[in-house]
Amino acid sequence: MTRFPSFTALRTACRDLPSGDAATAASAVDRNATLTKPPGSLGRLEELATWLAQWQARNPPRLDRIEVLVFAGNHGVVRQGVSAFPAEVTAQMVANFAAGGAAINQLAALAGARLRVVPLDLDRPTADFTKEPAMDEDAFLRAVTTGHDSVPDDADLVCLGEMGIGNTTAAATMAAALFGGGGIRWAGRGTGIDDDGLARKRATIDMALKRHSGILDDPLHVAAAVGGRELAALLGAALAARRRRIPVLIDGFVCTAALAPLAMLHPDGLAHAVAAHVSAEAAHRALLDKLGLEPLVDLGMRLGEASGAAVGALILRAAVACHIGMATFAEAGVSDKL
Amino acid sequence: MTRFPSFTALRTACRDLPSGDAATAASAVDRNATLTKPPGSLGRLEELATWLAQWQARNPPRLDRIEVLVFAGNHGVVRQGVSAFPAEVTAQMVANFAAGGAAINQLAALAGARLRVVPLDLDRPTADFTKEPAMDEDAFLRAVTTGHDSVPDDADLVCLGEMGIGNTTAAATMAAALFGGGGIRWAGRGTGIDDDGLARKRATIDMALKRHSGILDDPLHVAAAVGGRELAALLGAALAARRRRIPVLIDGFVCTAALAPLAMLHPDGLAHAVAAHVSAEAAHRALLDKLGLEPLVDLGMRLGEASGAAVGALILRAAVACHIGMATFAEAGVSDKL
Repeated sequence: MTRFPSFTALRTACRDLPSGDAATAASAVDRNATLTKPPGSLGRLEELATWLAQWQARNPPRLDRIEVLVFAGNHGVVRQGVSAFPAEVTAQMVANFAAGGAAINQLAALAGARLRVVPLDLDRPTADFTKEPAMDEDAFLRAVTTGHDSVPDDADLVCLGEMGIGNTTAAATMAAALFGGGGIRWAGRGTGIDDDGLARKRATIDMALKRHSGILDDPLHVAAAVGGRELAALLGAALAARRRRIPVLIDGFVCTAALAPLAMLHPDGLAHAVAAHVSAEAAHRALLDKLGLEPLVDLGMRLGEASGAAVGALILRAAVACHIGMATFAEAGVSDKL
Repeated sequence: MTRFPSFTALRTACRDLPSGDAATAASAVDRNATLTKPPGSLGRLEELATWLAQWQARNPPRLDRIEVLVFAGNHGVVRQGVSAFPAEVTAQMVANFAAGGAAINQLAALAGARLRVVPLDLDRPTADFTKEPAMDEDAFLRAVTTGHDSVPDDADLVCLGEMGIGNTTAAATMAAALFGGGGIRWAGRGTGIDDDGLARKRATIDMALKRHSGILDDPLHVAAAVGGRELAALLGAALAARRRRIPVLIDGFVCTAALAPLAMLHPDGLAHAVAAHVSAEAAHRALLDKLGLEPLVDLGMRLGEASGAAVGALILRAAVACHIGMATFAEAGVSDKL
C-alpha cells in the first residue's frame, strides 16, 4: 500500500504545496533589526533565522529536534563498473551507521541531531537502467512513501542524506535527463573512480538516456526510470517536510538530484530547503545553479550520508543562537547608528 | 614593563618561530586513511584535523579548551568621520559582552568556548593617525604584550577577534601601507557608512599613507603608526600562540590585517593560523589572497567580535569529531576499494 497510488497522485501532491508564513518572517526581520550589531552584519545567519521562522511559522524559530534521515539503496547499474567500491559496501555502511562508526554518527551527535537510517530493500538492487527502468511505478511509489513517512511530525529541521554504492551514476543520469548535457557534463568521480571508470560512467549515462528517451520530459518518470530507491525516498521526505512546513537541509549531489523533480513540478518547490554545501563531486555546483540554490559552505566534502547537511545544521544553530540570545540595542544600552 | 622592550626585540621574536610537528601530522594522515569513507571525501575537514594535530603535536588533536579572545580599542581617527557608529559604542559593546548579550556570547557558548574580552585603554583613544603616529613605540609594545599574555598556556585553540569603532579604517590603512594600493583599494563600508563616509574613509587612508610615508617598509612601525591597540594585541596573541604551538582561528578583515606583520616578518609566520571566514568587508578577500589564506566559510558576515572565528570553531569541532570518532575499515568490517 502506498500513500500515492499513482504517478498522477504524486504529481498532484507535488503541485499542491503550502507556502511559508510571511507574517512570521516579517516578525523575525523586525527582531533582527533590534539586535546589538550593525544591520545585516551577521550576513547569511540573519537570512537563515528568518527562513527557519518562516517555515516553522514560529519566531523565534527553534532547533530542539533535528532529524537526520539517511536513506540507503542498491543499484543494478553497478554492473556497468561505475563505482570504486563493491555493492556490498552499502549494507556494510548501514551496519557501520548502526554501530556508530560512520562520519554522520559523529556529525549528527555534534549537531545535537537524531540520526535515523532507512535501508530500502538492499538485497534487491534496482534494475540496471541501461537495460530497463530502475523501478516500475509501484516500486518507485513505495520508496517515495517510505521516505514520506520517515519524517517525524515534530521535527524542527530535517537533514537529508543517502548511502548507496552506484548512486552518483543514478543522480548524474537524473540530472542529465532533467537538464540535458549527457554523461560528459554530469558524471563525476563519485567515491573515487579512475579515468577508465569515469569513461564507463559517462557511457553508462548516455546509454540510459538513449534507452529512456521517451520519458525525459516527465520528472517523476525520470526518477523512477534512472533514479534509485534512496533517491525516491529523499523526494518523498522533502515532499512530506514541505507539506508539514518543516525546513530541510539538502546534502550533496545525489540528494540535490533526488529533490530536483520537486523544483520542476512546482515553481518554488524547494523554497523550504537550503543547500547545506556544495560538494567536490564535479557537477554539484552546476546542479545547484540550475535549481537556484546557494550552498552554505564549500568544504570540498563528497561523502554523502548527510555529512554536509549535518555541518549545515551547525551553521543553523549559530543563526538561531544569535537570533534568540542577543540583546537588543535598548536592552544593552548601546547607541544606535549616528 | 613590556615583554618586548623595543621594536627590534619584537621583530627578533617574530623571526624566531617554531614549526609544527611533522611526525604528528604524518600520523594524523595515516589514521585518516583508515577511516570508513572514501579517501579524501571529508575534504577540508581532513586537512583541518591534520593541521590541528600538527600544531598541537598530538594525534588525535583535542578541542577541550577553546579560548575566544576579543580585544577592544578606541581610535583617534574617528574624528575624521569614518564610522557609522559613535566611538562610545566600543565601551558599550564591551559592557554588552560582559552581560552576555552580543553575538559572540551566543556563538562562543555554542562552540563550547571560553570568551575573554580584553579592553585596552578605551578612555584613551590612539592618536589621529592622519596627524601623528597612532601609538609611540612604548604604547604599541604594551598593547602587543597585553595580547601576548592573554593567551592561556593550556588552550587547544585560540579564536581571535576585536571590537573598536573606527578600526576598519586602521586595518585598511595597515593593508594599504603593507601591500600598496591606497584608500580606494582597501576601504570598505565597515559597520555601514554611506557613500560620503566611504569617500572620507578613502581620503583618510591616503592622508595617513602620506603622513607616514617614511616608515611603510617596516611592518611593525606600520602597525604602531596606523594600527590600533586592539590590532597590536591581536598580533601579540598570534605570536604567543605560535611560540606555544597553539593553533589559531583568524576572524575578519581587521584581525587579518593585524596579523599581516607576522606573515611579512617570517616566511610561514601564519602557518599556525587558519582564516575562519571571508567577511563582507570589501577588501577582506584581497587581503586573504595576499597572505595566501583560504577561508573556511563565506557567510557574508562582517561583525567582528571573533564571530566568524567562532563559526569556524564549529567546523573544527566537526573535523575533530570525525577524526576521533569514526571507525576504521577493519573495525567496521567495511570493504576497502575494489
